[in-house]
Amino acid sequence: MQGWRYKLHEIIYEADTPSGKFFDIALLVVIFISVVLVMLESITVLNVKYFWEFYIAEWAITAIFTVEYILRVLTIKQPKKYIFSFYGIVDLLSTIPSYIGFFFGGQNLLFAIRALRLLRIFRILKVTRYIGESQKLISALRNSKAKILVFLFAVVIICVIAGTLMHLVEGKGGGFDNIPLSIYWCIVTLTTVGFGDIAPITPLGRLIASIIMITGYGIIAVPTGIVSAEYSKRTADAIPSNTQVCHNCNETKHMNDAQHCHRCGHKLND
Amino acid sequence: MQGWRYKLHEIIYEADTPSGKFFDIALLVVIFISVVLVMLESITVLNVKYFWEFYIAEWAITAIFTVEYILRVLTIKQPKKYIFSFYGIVDLLSTIPSYIGFFFGGQNLLFAIRALRLLRIFRILKVTRYIGESQKLISALRNSKAKILVFLFAVVIICVIAGTLMHLVEGKGGGFDNIPLSIYWCIVTLTTVGFGDIAPITPLGRLIASIIMITGYGIIAVPTGIVSAEYSKRTADAIPSNTQVCHNCNETKHMNDAQHCHRCGHKLND
Amino acid sequence: MQGWRYKLHEIIYEADTPSGKFFDIALLVVIFISVVLVMLESITVLNVKYFWEFYIAEWAITAIFTVEYILRVLTIKQPKKYIFSFYGIVDLLSTIPSYIGFFFGGQNLLFAIRALRLLRIFRILKVTRYIGESQKLISALRNSKAKILVFLFAVVIICVIAGTLMHLVEGKGGGFDNIPLSIYWCIVTLTTVGFGDIAPITPLGRLIASIIMITGYGIIAVPTGIVSAEYSKRTADAIPSNTQVCHNCNETKHMNDAQHCHRCGHKLND
Amino acid sequence: MQGWRYKLHEIIYEADTPSGKFFDIALLVVIFISVVLVMLESITVLNVKYFWEFYIAEWAITAIFTVEYILRVLTIKQPKKYIFSFYGIVDLLSTIPSYIGFFFGGQNLLFAIRALRLLRIFRILKVTRYIGESQKLISALRNSKAKILVFLFAVVIICVIAGTLMHLVEGKGGGFDNIPLSIYWCIVTLTTVGFGDIAPITPLGRLIASIIMITGYGIIAVPTGIVSAEYSKRTADAIPSNTQVCHNCNETKHMNDAQHCHRCGHKLND
Repeated sequence: MQGWRYKLHEIIYEADTPSGKFFDIALLVVIFISVVLVMLESITVLNVKYFWEFYIAEWAITAIFTVEYILRVLTIKQPKKYIFSFYGIVDLLSTIPSYIGFFFGGQNLLFAIRALRLLRIFRILKVTRYIGESQKLISALRNSKAKILVFLFAVVIICVIAGTLMHLVEGKGGGFDNIPLSIYWCIVTLTTVGFGDIAPITPLGRLIASIIMITGYGIIAVPTGIVSAEYSKRTADAIPSNTQVCHNCNETKHMNDAQHCHRCGHKLND
Repeated sequence: MQGWRYKLHEIIYEADTPSGKFFDIALLVVIFISVVLVMLESITVLNVKYFWEFYIAEWAITAIFTVEYILRVLTIKQPKKYIFSFYGIVDLLSTIPSYIGFFFGGQNLLFAIRALRLLRIFRILKVTRYIGESQKLISALRNSKAKILVFLFAVVIICVIAGTLMHLVEGKGGGFDNIPLSIYWCIVTLTTVGFGDIAPITPLGRLIASIIMITGYGIIAVPTGIVSAEYSKRTADAIPSNTQVCHNCNETKHMNDAQHCHRCGHKLND
Repeated sequence: MQGWRYKLHEIIYEADTPSGKFFDIALLVVIFISVVLVMLESITVLNVKYFWEFYIAEWAITAIFTVEYILRVLTIKQPKKYIFSFYGIVDLLSTIPSYIGFFFGGQNLLFAIRALRLLRIFRILKVTRYIGESQKLISALRNSKAKILVFLFAVVIICVIAGTLMHLVEGKGGGFDNIPLSIYWCIVTLTTVGFGDIAPITPLGRLIASIIMITGYGIIAVPTGIVSAEYSKRTADAIPSNTQVCHNCNETKHMNDAQHCHRCGHKLND
Repeated sequence: MQGWRYKLHEIIYEADTPSGKFFDIALLVVIFISVVLVMLESITVLNVKYFWEFYIAEWAITAIFTVEYILRVLTIKQPKKYIFSFYGIVDLLSTIPSYIGFFFGGQNLLFAIRALRLLRIFRILKVTRYIGESQKLISALRNSKAKILVFLFAVVIICVIAGTLMHLVEGKGGGFDNIPLSIYWCIVTLTTVGFGDIAPITPLGRLIASIIMITGYGIIAVPTGIVSAEYSKRTADAIPSNTQVCHNCNETKHMNDAQHCHRCGHKLND
């Protein structure tokens, strides 16, 4: 591999060298700015007043993302590995909306597509010092997946039955006009969110609501117990906390003292 | 036992063979459709527009449930065991409403009865891969039953006393017009649901409300502590994760390598 | 001690004999009825319609409570121990309101005093099968008292500071008109109750509110962690689960196989 | 060091002698009064009615705080250590607002600055019996910092994405008029606060809201699991629970039997 491609790979994909760290931070700043821009653009008064400023910033960010995407494809030996990875697809989706808007127009749809740029904020999870912790969290959640699914499924069953009951008790014409609406209310209540846009008004409805609320208050303990038990099992030492990326296949999560990629065998510091 | 009855038993009651699995999934799909139908039917505009479609779908599902119920009764050696079991009663209750409606009429009542069909969704808890987890959950909850009851009872006592206090402080004429209403508000508040349809307006009432809220925030820890402690005691290995059902007495929860029913001694693979 | 006094003591104060259990259950039923009566009486329409029925029930319950109080005082060797105990004071307070009303009148005040009758529901905690569990709960809470107080105090400090900040940001004239009101809103928000009667409307106010909410969501873990850790330390075997009461000094919480009162030395089965 | 300075240091900075305890309690009372005054002053009707009373109390408290600040500076050998410490800055900031108001006027700004006085309530964390517990709490939180930050960051990412989605689904004109507003709503919902000032009205919006709520209900377990695991690791014995302060460098957290300051080596009881 040519020297400059190797060097660029290290800068773009990793964060263990000073220039690699600088690239990552600069990229995060650009992503943050692009996210803030999408937000501000959605405020009508600002969009009307600063239309041209938004237009220019829009294309500046698109240019930066385009260059970054091309460099990422060029500096890797097997570009397909990057292009079809999660981050590769996110990078592409967050780069093209401006081009689509330029060629096809369509303001409303365009805005919707541009919001895809927000997906880029997942990149922040790659910041070195949070890699270990976030992987522990994800690993604990993954191990509790079946338990949490069973729990959430039980919550949904309770909401479907209680929602139907509330519809029968409160009757048509109010906030419990049909069953899907009653189930929505039931989820709002059981999860202790409680908007208050819909609330029971009959004494029996309020009695059932009280039972639903106390149930929700009681069963919130279940997922906590599950994750607590799972979390205390996790050990910190087995999880790598570096940002090494294979120059060949883009695999991450190498051991801290790994010399070769554990997937394709390519030398890591080559 | 005749071959076809034995074979049907295995298909209908168990999920360890391919055809058994297919039957279970098909049944879940029908149940899901019937649940969605009950929901959609409750939306007035849809009910008026698609009256005949609903009518036909109604009878199609009733027919399927009727056939399934008859097969379940026929293929078991001791039908009473099934008929008077939890799922047997649910199956019967979710099949007959259409017949009742046909013979007696009465739209509103009929709809209420038809909602019983929702109880069938409990069947999903029998899906093989969730049996182990859901039984662990139920077992942990059952072991914490006395503790959780004491806790919930304490919550109710606090709500009754605090509700009466709020009625005295806020007085008649507002949202705290009588004690049951005040207690309802108190449950809404202590469980951190907080609809906002009723809210204190006097300074003293707001002070007491603040104390109730902070109390509720503090004691939410209690059920969590109980379930956490109980949950971490559970061990996974002792709980069977198969769907074998005795052909004689319908007993479930057999050990994974069980040869005979642990209740009646009937051979399991006979 | 005379035989009948001894016998009555066992019936009234304990629940280990059949007649003792019957007395306890009958008393709980009367308390429950009296609580329901107080609630129903607070509903204006019912109070007007069934005035005489309420009046008669009122005096019937007062009569029962009076007899019970006199018997409790008579059957114990050291009446002062009972009269000045928690339950003794509650029993007296829940008996006298009707007499006060008879001699002095004053409807509104009278109702407030009668609500004291609700305190009697604490008696339910003496039901045998919940004694062990409720004492474990109380014991776990008592051991976490200092930790929970520190936590709740931190919550109050956060609310005072954040409330003042919100008052400065949102300004006068709205829901954050003065600091106590802002602090009330802050407690409503941090405890995740969220009535919605007061809500920020300025962008900066909403940003601060978001931070408060995420903080509240994050620190709810703290009391849970405290109680969980404390609760798993508790052992069940050391807590007595009988209802023996000393005939002399009314001390409870005797060991299951205790022969003498551990406080005054009086023989328990004498 | 002169005797009176040594004596005053012990009284002002420590709470192990009777006079030291009295000083601490008196100071807490003054702080509490000053906090209540700031709150009451914010209520317009009271401020107008009792203007002079507030004015006098204001200056009385300022005088007390001024004397205390001067004494604290005088009785310590290295005044800079105190002046630039957290409590030193808080003490100064809470003393000067009245003087600023006297020389420069400006009612509104003045009130904002005076609110800084609230920061003094942190002093209560120095009350002897809570020092141990609060340090354990802070220590547990500090050790979970990275984990909790990753969790809260994940919550913010979810809110940004779900908020944008809700803006696209619910459209302009309602409560989801722009993305920042939608994100605000999303935080309100995910943290189960649920004000209800903004609520979805389209069926699809309500479906997404339901998913957000159930997600929020499920992931509340994560910080709890983190803190629980961390908290049970903490041991009580290693944390000092005295209020000794070095007369030279103001260092706290000395071991209970320490003879010399562990930072500067100055003798503690000198």
